[in-house]
Parts: sequence; C-alpha cells; structure tokens
Amino acid sequence: MSEPRTLNVGLIGAGRIGSSHAELIARTVPNAQLVAIADPVEGVAARLAEQLHVPAAYTDPAQLLADPQVEAVVITAPARFHTGLVEQAAAAGKAIFCEKPAGMTLEDIDRVQQAVEAHGVLFRIGFNRRFADGFPQARAVIEAGRIGTPQLLRSTTRDPGLANPAAVAPWTIFLETLIHDFDTLNFLNPGARAVQVYAVADALVAPEYKDAGLLDTAVVTIRCDNGAIATAEASFSAAYGYDTRAEAFGSGGMVTAGDLAASTLRYYGPEGIAVDTVRADTQSMRGAYTGELQAFTDTALGHPSEGPGVEAARDALRIALGCIASCRTGAPVALDVVGAAR
Amino acid sequence: MSEPRTLNVGLIGAGRIGSSHAELIARTVPNAQLVAIADPVEGVAARLAEQLHVPAAYTDPAQLLADPQVEAVVITAPARFHTGLVEQAAAAGKAIFCEKPAGMTLEDIDRVQQAVEAHGVLFRIGFNRRFADGFPQARAVIEAGRIGTPQLLRSTTRDPGLANPAAVAPWTIFLETLIHDFDTLNFLNPGARAVQVYAVADALVAPEYKDAGLLDTAVVTIRCDNGAIATAEASFSAAYGYDTRAEAFGSGGMVTAGDLAASTLRYYGPEGIAVDTVRADTQSMRGAYTGELQAFTDTALGHPSEGPGVEAARDALRIALGCIASCRTGAPVALDVVGAAR
Amino acid sequence: MSEPRTLNVGLIGAGRIGSSHAELIARTVPNAQLVAIADPVEGVAARLAEQLHVPAAYTDPAQLLADPQVEAVVITAPARFHTGLVEQAAAAGKAIFCEKPAGMTLEDIDRVQQAVEAHGVLFRIGFNRRFADGFPQARAVIEAGRIGTPQLLRSTTRDPGLANPAAVAPWTIFLETLIHDFDTLNFLNPGARAVQVYAVADALVAPEYKDAGLLDTAVVTIRCDNGAIATAEASFSAAYGYDTRAEAFGSGGMVTAGDLAASTLRYYGPEGIAVDTVRADTQSMRGAYTGELQAFTDTALGHPSEGPGVEAARDALRIALGCIASCRTGAPVALDVVGAAR
Amino acid sequence: MSEPRTLNVGLIGAGRIGSSHAELIARTVPNAQLVAIADPVEGVAARLAEQLHVPAAYTDPAQLLADPQVEAVVITAPARFHTGLVEQAAAAGKAIFCEKPAGMTLEDIDRVQQAVEAHGVLFRIGFNRRFADGFPQARAVIEAGRIGTPQLLRSTTRDPGLANPAAVAPWTIFLETLIHDFDTLNFLNPGARAVQVYAVADALVAPEYKDAGLLDTAVVTIRCDNGAIATAEASFSAAYGYDTRAEAFGSGGMVTAGDLAASTLRYYGPEGIAVDTVRADTQSMRGAYTGELQAFTDTALGHPSEGPGVEAARDALRIALGCIASCRTGAPVALDVVGAAR
Repeated sequence: MSEPRTLNVGLIGAGRIGSSHAELIARTVPNAQLVAIADPVEGVAARLAEQLHVPAAYTDPAQLLADPQVEAVVITAPARFHTGLVEQAAAAGKAIFCEKPAGMTLEDIDRVQQAVEAHGVLFRIGFNRRFADGFPQARAVIEAGRIGTPQLLRSTTRDPGLANPAAVAPWTIFLETLIHDFDTLNFLNPGARAVQVYAVADALVAPEYKDAGLLDTAVVTIRCDNGAIATAEASFSAAYGYDTRAEAFGSGGMVTAGDLAASTLRYYGPEGIAVDTVRADTQSMRGAYTGELQAFTDTALGHPSEGPGVEAARDALRIALGCIASCRTGAPVALDVVGAAR
Repeated sequence: MSEPRTLNVGLIGAGRIGSSHAELIARTVPNAQLVAIADPVEGVAARLAEQLHVPAAYTDPAQLLADPQVEAVVITAPARFHTGLVEQAAAAGKAIFCEKPAGMTLEDIDRVQQAVEAHGVLFRIGFNRRFADGFPQARAVIEAGRIGTPQLLRSTTRDPGLANPAAVAPWTIFLETLIHDFDTLNFLNPGARAVQVYAVADALVAPEYKDAGLLDTAVVTIRCDNGAIATAEASFSAAYGYDTRAEAFGSGGMVTAGDLAASTLRYYGPEGIAVDTVRADTQSMRGAYTGELQAFTDTALGHPSEGPGVEAARDALRIALGCIASCRTGAPVALDVVGAAR
Repeated sequence: MSEPRTLNVGLIGAGRIGSSHAELIARTVPNAQLVAIADPVEGVAARLAEQLHVPAAYTDPAQLLADPQVEAVVITAPARFHTGLVEQAAAAGKAIFCEKPAGMTLEDIDRVQQAVEAHGVLFRIGFNRRFADGFPQARAVIEAGRIGTPQLLRSTTRDPGLANPAAVAPWTIFLETLIHDFDTLNFLNPGARAVQVYAVADALVAPEYKDAGLLDTAVVTIRCDNGAIATAEASFSAAYGYDTRAEAFGSGGMVTAGDLAASTLRYYGPEGIAVDTVRADTQSMRGAYTGELQAFTDTALGHPSEGPGVEAARDALRIALGCIASCRTGAPVALDVVGAAR
Repeated sequence: MSEPRTLNVGLIGAGRIGSSHAELIARTVPNAQLVAIADPVEGVAARLAEQLHVPAAYTDPAQLLADPQVEAVVITAPARFHTGLVEQAAAAGKAIFCEKPAGMTLEDIDRVQQAVEAHGVLFRIGFNRRFADGFPQARAVIEAGRIGTPQLLRSTTRDPGLANPAAVAPWTIFLETLIHDFDTLNFLNPGARAVQVYAVADALVAPEYKDAGLLDTAVVTIRCDNGAIATAEASFSAAYGYDTRAEAFGSGGMVTAGDLAASTLRYYGPEGIAVDTVRADTQSMRGAYTGELQAFTDTALGHPSEGPGVEAARDALRIALGCIASCRTGAPVALDVVGAAR
C-alpha cells in the first residue's frame, strides 16, 4: 500500500486569523500537516505550536522558509508584509497561500506575479468568500446562464465589532475588508471587468477616530465593462453579528448567497420568533476557511482544484485603489487610470 | 341612529393604476364611495364607471371637479399633469390624493403647496411603500431606537417588465420609479435629510432605446446629514416578479422589509423547494394601495391618520432631480444646489 | 347603467367571531351589505348595529329571519344552536353561511341537508382554512398532481390562549377546533375518505379543569382509504401566537402552508433575528374570513364560487365524532361505524 | 513538547454508512486515526483501506479486535450483528461506538449493558440527530426552560429513496429509521419517559412488497409520563431529499430544528424562488456524523464529551418494540409491558 501523501505546511503570523488557520490545518484539513509556525512576538509561535502539537516554532519567518520540512506556507502576517514574504517564499520554492491583500499597490502585485512565475510555485490568495456557503453555488448558477447577463450586483461585509479603532490603518476598509466584496463581485460577474468606481466612506462607528483617518463605514458603486452596476458596502460594527451577503441580478433572474442564521434552530416565544445569528467570521467562515485551505492543499499535492490567484488579487486591488482615489477626490474614478501601471 | 358618513370620491385618469385605485375605492376601502370617473380618452371612464357601478363618467377633469357630489379626488393622470390638476382640485375645494410625483420640478411642488395651503384642502401623495407590508413596522422599530442611528440604508424597486420602452420618458426611472425608494429612504431615516447624490443609470434591459434616452437600470448613492449612506436601486425588468425591499442598518441593529413570496405555500419537489413570487404591484401592493387610500379617506372624514404630504413629495423629488443632474455631469451633486429655489 | 346588485345580509350571534364577521360584511366584503343583527343578550345587537351603521337590530333570531330585507344569514351563534337556526333560515328561504360545526351529531347534519335541499337554499360552512393564505394554493398543487399520491398529512391549530377554561365544553377541542384541521386534511387529500381515527387528548394547559372534562391538547391519527396517514394536532395555548399550519407529503413531493410571521419585517439586533408573530385569528385569518364571506356573497348573487357545503361539514364531523369515541375507549375507531347512520 | 495523543480506531462493516464513517475518521475527525477496517466481503475492506491509507484490512472482525493497535471500534455492521460485536469488542477492552440499534430486543440491550459495565469500556450509540445542526441547540433551549413544559413534540425522518425494497427487513422502519426519531423525542423531552405508543404503518411507497412484510411509511403517537404527546413519522421515499426535522412545543413556547436547504443559495427566476435541497444523509448529516465521532474520540481520549449511551439505546428501542406490538394488535400498547423484562 502506498503511503498517504501529506503536505507539510508552515504558517507565518500567529495572530487571530493565523491561529484559526493553524488550527484548521493541524486538525481539520485532510492531507495537510502543520509542521512549523513563525511569529516575531517572542513565545507566540511556541505556545500555538505546543497547543497544536506542531514540532517547530520560529520567531523569524526566514527560519521557517529555510526549514526543509516545509513544503508550503500560509502567510497570515500583517498585510504590509505580504508582498515581501511572498517573494521570499517563492524564492524558497514553497507553495504559497497568502491572506488578502497580496500587496498594497499594483506594483506589489507585479512583484508577486514575477516571483511566483519566476520560481514556478503555486500561489493562492485568501478570498474566502469563494468558498463560503452559497457563494460557489451562486457562481455556478451564473455561469450556467440562469440569471442571464448580470446587471445589478451587491456584496456586503459587516464585521461584528471594532475592537481597537486606534489600530486600524486609514484605508483598511477598502484594502482589507471590502477587498473581499470586490473579489466577490468579480467572481459573480464572470468575464466582466470593473471600469469605474465611486466611493463614499466615513467614521460613523467611531467618529472620534475620524481625524486619525479611520473609515469604518463605506459604500462603493462600481461600473463594469458589461454594463453591470455593482455595489459593495461595509461596516466595522454590526450589532447582530458577522454579516456577509451577496446578490446578483441579471436579465434572467437573481441569486442571493449568505445568511445570518447560526443554526437551523428557531425559537417561538412570547416575543415572537427568534433566530440566533453568527457572531464571528471564525464561526460563519469556518467552512470557507477549510475549503480554501483544502483547495490549496489539494492543488499543491497535484490534484488541481479551483481557487483565486494573482489575477484575482490584482483585479480586486485595482478596485480598492480606485476607491481610495475616489475618496480623495470626492469623484468617480476610471480604473484604467488606476491600472495604467500594468 | 346616525347615518354612516361616506366620502364621495372622484377619480381622474383611468389607466392601469387608475383602474386599480378605482376598484379599491369602489369595492374595498370602507367609507369611501366612488361617485365619478374622468378620463380624456372617449369611452374609457364610461366603461370603468359601468363596471364599478359608478354613477358619473366624464372626459374632462374640469367636469368632475365641477360635480358637487365629488368631495375628494384621486389623481392618477400621467405625471406631467399632476401639478395642474392639484391646483384645479384645490381651487374646487376637494381633498386631494395625488399619485407620485406631485410635479416635475421643485417649482411645481411650490405651486402644489401654495394651492393646498391657500384653499385649506387635504393633500396626500401616493408613496405607497409607507403602507406596504413590513415598511411601517420597520419605521416603528427605527423610531423606537432599536437600530440606533441609521448608517447604511437600501431600497430596491424592480418592476416585472418593460411593456413599452418607447413610451417611457427619459428620466422616468428617477421621477416615477426610484422616487418611491427615495421616499422610503427618507421614511426609514426619520429626521435626516439627503445632502448629496450620485447616480449611475443605463439602458441594460432595452439597450436599443438608449439613444432615445431610455434609462431602465439605475443605482443611486445618497449621503444624509446624519452621516447615513443610502443606496437606491431600480430595474424595469425583473424576471421573477415585482421586487420591493428595503434595509436599514444602524449602530444598534438592522431592519429589513419586503418579501417576494406570493403566499405561505412552499412546494418541495424533485427540483428542490419552490416558492411562487409576486408578479405585479397590483398584487403585492394591493394592501398598501388600500392602506393609503383608507388613510386618505379617514383623514378627509375627520379621523386623522398619518400619510405623506407636500413635504414628503418635495424631499423625494429633490433627490430625483439631484440624480438627473448627477447623470448629466457624471459627478456627485450637492442637494442644497438642487433645492436652492426654496 | 344597471344598479349594482348587493346582497342584504343578516347576522345571528354577535359574540367575538360574530362581531368580526359583521365588521367584514359591513365594511370589507364588496357587494355585501349588513342590514340586520340579532343577539339574545339585551343591547348587544343594537350596539354593534349602531357602530357599523346597520339599520336593524333584534334580540330574537326569528325576528331577523322574518325581516323581508334579509336575503342571506350568517350564523355565528354558539355551536349547539347551529342546526336549529339553519333549519329556520332555510325555511325562511335565506342563503346560509354557518360557522362550524353545522351540528353536534350526524343526525344534525342530516337535518341540515334535508332543510337546505327542501328549500333549495345555498349553504356554506365556515371552514376558513380553505381560504387562508397558502391553503388553496396547496390544494391546487395537489390537484395538479405535483405531490403525487398523498401519503402523510398534517394539520395544526394552536390558539394563543385559553381565556375561560370553565366555559369550554368537554369535546370542544374536536368539535370546534380540530374540526378545522379535519376539514383541512380532507381538503388536501382530494377524493380520499377517512376510515379510522385514534385520538389522544388531555388537559395540559389547565389541568385543574380536567375533572370538569376540559381537553385542551390533542393529537389525532387518521387513516384514509387511499392509504394516507394524517395527523391533526391542537393546543388551546400557544405562547407565541395563533399557529395554523398544514403539510401534505406524497409520492412526488410535499407542500406546506401557513406561517407565523406577522409581517415581512425582520429585526436583527444584539439578541439575533426577531420576527413578530400573529397573535389572533382575527389578525391572521382576516383574509380567510373575507374570502369565505366573499365566496358566499358571490355565489348567493349568482356568481358561483367554490366553498365547503354540507358534505364537507359531514366529512369533518365524522372524524370529530370518531375522536370522541376513540377518547372514550382509548382505542382506534373505524369511521364506518361512526357514520353508519347515513 | 508532548506528543499529540491520537485514538487508533478500527471500523467493522464497510457498507454505505461504514464507508462514510471511515472517511470521516480517517480524514476529518481530529485526533482519531483509522488503523484497521474489517468487512466479511472479500476485498471490500482492503479497497477502502487502500483508498484511505489505512494500514490494516481484515475479513473477520475478530482479527480486527485482536489487533493490538486498535484502541476503539466503530461498529457499522448490519443491525442484527450489533449486540454480538459489542460483546466481543467489550471483552477485547475496546472503546465502542455502535451504529443504532444496539440490539433487536431489550435482552440484547441488557447484554450490551452487562458487557460494557463488566469490561469498563466506553459505549456510544450512533443517534446522530443529537449532533445535527439545530438539535443540540433545541435541547439547550428546552433545558433552559424557554418552552416551559413540553406538551406536543414531533420528529420526522424521510429518506430520499428506497433503493432495494426486497432487502428491507419487516420492522426496519421502527428499529432502524424511526429509532432516530424516538431518541430525538426523548432528547427533546428531558427527564420524561414514554409510557404508551400507537403505530400505524403501511407499504405506500412499494405496495408490491407489502406481502413480504415491507413497511415504508409510518406514524407513531407516543404518550409520555409528563403528559406530553409526541408524534414520530417516517417515509422511505421523499422526492425532494433527506428530510429530518423536529418540533417541540410547550407551555412557554416552541423550538424547531432541521432544514431542507442545501446551502444559503436562493435562485429567483421566471418560475419563482428555488432552493436546492439536501439529497442524502451523508450530505446533510456530515456535520452530525463528525460531531458524534468527535465526541466519542474525545471521551475515549479522556476529554469527556456528552453523547448517548446504553440508556438512550434502551429508551429508544422500547418505543420501537412498542410500535411493533401496536402494529400487530392494531391497538395502543403500554410500554411498561414492553419494558417489563427489565
């Protein structure tokens, strides 16, 4: 009997999402084995490694990348380090799963692309919505032509709370939150391309941080080259939980995906009907996280499975950068200008 | 025993919505009696009057307004005649229920206001969404403070089909369709005021009519003076029926209103679960039409009941006019400019 | 122009459901006019008549039946008087709408049938579920063959509360509450006939009234001659509102009808999602009451419209009587024994 | 760093559910490792073992039980072998997870209890509904007192199809299908005990197998010692998928659990709204299967986690046996008679 082929994974960045991904790789994703964790904060990688029975812990990602055991890396470091880490990982010949965004500029994306192509390594970006309950099914319905030509699209991300407004970088809502929605809108409008964006954003949740540049609420209008008009919308503080929904309307029908219900339980009491809601992405997106890491693992092991790569990373980032430009000018922005660099 | 007090109503304009309103007044609205119908097309008023056992039919609205039997009028003539008819009806001392919009310009609204105030007559506008299933309940939840401060709002109107694109005036989507959504957004954001709009519109349903000025698909972003960002969206052709929904999200929660299901029936078959959808406004809005006409009748009979008047008409039209300006310039438009006339 | 033809209706029994029906006839049902009310309690008919602007009020139903103005009667007296009143009304040549049940025994139903046939008058029974949202649609799906042969059926009625347990007659749960479910199960299993019943009933809501014969909770299993097994279930006290639902499962699929939601409003707050529920039959069944009274009015005016008559009354009562026999013996009861009288 | 503690599991019976459980243990359940598979059919265990990279495959369960590597067994053999295999596994000192039922008679359950107690091994039965989406949440709501005293309960199991009617044993619908519902009803009525059952069953799906004793459709009424009346209902052929739902109604409210929707996707097209349904237990119950195997694994590894054991097995079987007696006599059966053996 042949030995089972397992992918040895190293994880860089053991913060909130890193810990969640680490646990999924270690315990839930079949054929993936977590063999190393790196985090610059003394003791953080070691503690997580002990808890998950992972043999190696490092404070320097370079050590992890130098570990010959490690075949693939999952990058969950802060966003500004993504591009550099991708370049190092590619140079080390590792298959790469990188949390979004892959970079902060289109030049970053060019660097990612060059590194990945030059070293011939697998690259996947963590656009989890593509693996979330209802979303791939929506895409399949659209690809089958059942909504006709997409005309109106919508994607929403509302986080359950804003723990530390002081720590949020000015354009985070576009670069790290709405980038999921931009990718979702691209995903649900196959073959089309965003050509213009108009963004409105404000500090409505924590207005006291507005002067520091915080934007916690935003609405974006996107025109696409197939005529479709898309809306992306985000808030950093939804009182009722973690809200990620999408809607795609076309000449032949509509699909919606996403749901707030935490389970099939319905309670009927003196106050009416009550339904518990999902409270965190690590709860409602657990299946999506598992799915994207599974697809990455399978592909790295030679069983190709679909997932977003450099092109998807670039297409979503172009929109995010257009939003920043639109906020700065208060006017709509043509994306060919934004994307001219390429 | 005192005689029941009944409101004698005359209806001007026996088209599609006029016929529907006529039937509701004649048959369903308690304490309202339809006593006269006017329509300029020879035979139209007479036929509808016979069908509904209405004693008087006219081809000239002036005849109807001169009929001493008529205490109140329902104006369902084409939109461009609304302002003039309101002025005549007010001069004749009739209580007035006018379909939207009350005029095509803010000057029109000024004329309506002056006429109504000068003659001391009741004026109501047909913003039916305020009486539609779920919408007044949503407003009550918002007024009770249960969603906190509104931050993100959305209102959608999608008509089931575009029967005659050639007959649609260029800005109809803003002046006659989205005006419902603008009013809904005002209704669900009590006390706030729209300050800026940005509109994107196109002919996606019937592109062959684009050169003739048809706009059949539109998305509007509205900034309000309480910080809220609202989105209104419309299409003239939804394959699945008549779709009117709203969502209001705030610092403390969210409400949604509107539903596509035609009844409580659910069918589970080999293809999965199937739910019939509402196919026409006269089906899904029947309760709302009855409600607004009932509120008008009750108020006219001295039992005051809430409903939208001149202020609501103006507030919604301001947004619609801002959209037209935005489409013309391709840029966001500040509404204080639009509303400067007043 | 021909005069509108209106049905002059007299109502007998101005209690809770009588007052509700009276108001619907007086204000909402087109082409029906409430011209007389009778109630034996001094002043009750007069007060309701004044409120609804009804010209005549009587304390003796015989007076109402003798009123030449009255063309049709709606019988909402206590159940034990139904059969006698139907006989008198038929003898007086009135079209008859009788609340359920038409009698307490199958002999009563025979008397009803003889009276109605002998005098050639219209007879309808108030099995409102046939007109409730979703139920006629369910029947249409079943008649179209879309669930195949019915195999498992279910109907539920749960009232929101038990105001006065002392006033409830021992078998009321079968004769007046579940009789709706028995009719619903017959309605959703067209052409089939109940052949055996087994009933379990108890006083779970108000156990202190059990010795007085109160049964407030019951579950009934019904075998039908097409093999289908049906369950009817009732409670006199649902904390969350008025709950009437049905389900029909067959070889080709399933339909469900009935819903607790009071409106399309959904509230999302810190506790999750909340939906208001319907709290009373006069709220959730208002459309059904209007529908059944409308169908009766139309038919009486010569525009035939479907609705349940003597046969439906008998078929449902047979099951109710079988339930009583089953409770007495603690065993299943064959309905051919129950129905042998005919 | 301490080594991760993993449970070495052997699986007996590689049929449909056995293969599904094997895959979950091998690939999805953290801390469980599938080390051996046994199946009497030549080649079946070997093929599954190869596919899942399991080192050992046997044709005789005794070989598997003799394998010192194996610490725990999952018994997915045909039902009639369960009791004997449990006895052998207990004698071999293995922790035991046994698919339902644990036996065909109460004497079987006594044997199971004696074996498990004598050898001090863990015993869990595969009542998966306790781990299915919504069901544990429903139990928690009930235990918190939020529905008050349970009065009316319902549990449904409808399988998507009857592949081979000839292979189904006569009482399978009670012993292997409805036994899930009996356990669910016990689970949702904590502390109560079934005292009487009445069962109606027939061959409605495959009437041509009725003479061979097939029963493919059944409805059971259960009285409990706290007054509650419960209904269990099953069909072997639901056209629309795999349908498992429960409802518990009490003096203070109601909970429902279970849902047919396959994902959050909703499609709105010319025919209305369409929702895909779950088509197989291995699809809709995947989470439940994982959950029950996880709870078993955790408990076996010394991290106690709740799950059904011998008492639950006995309580559900008592009801199933009562149903068989009720079918034989056509009458209700008191369960103290059925359970008298103990």
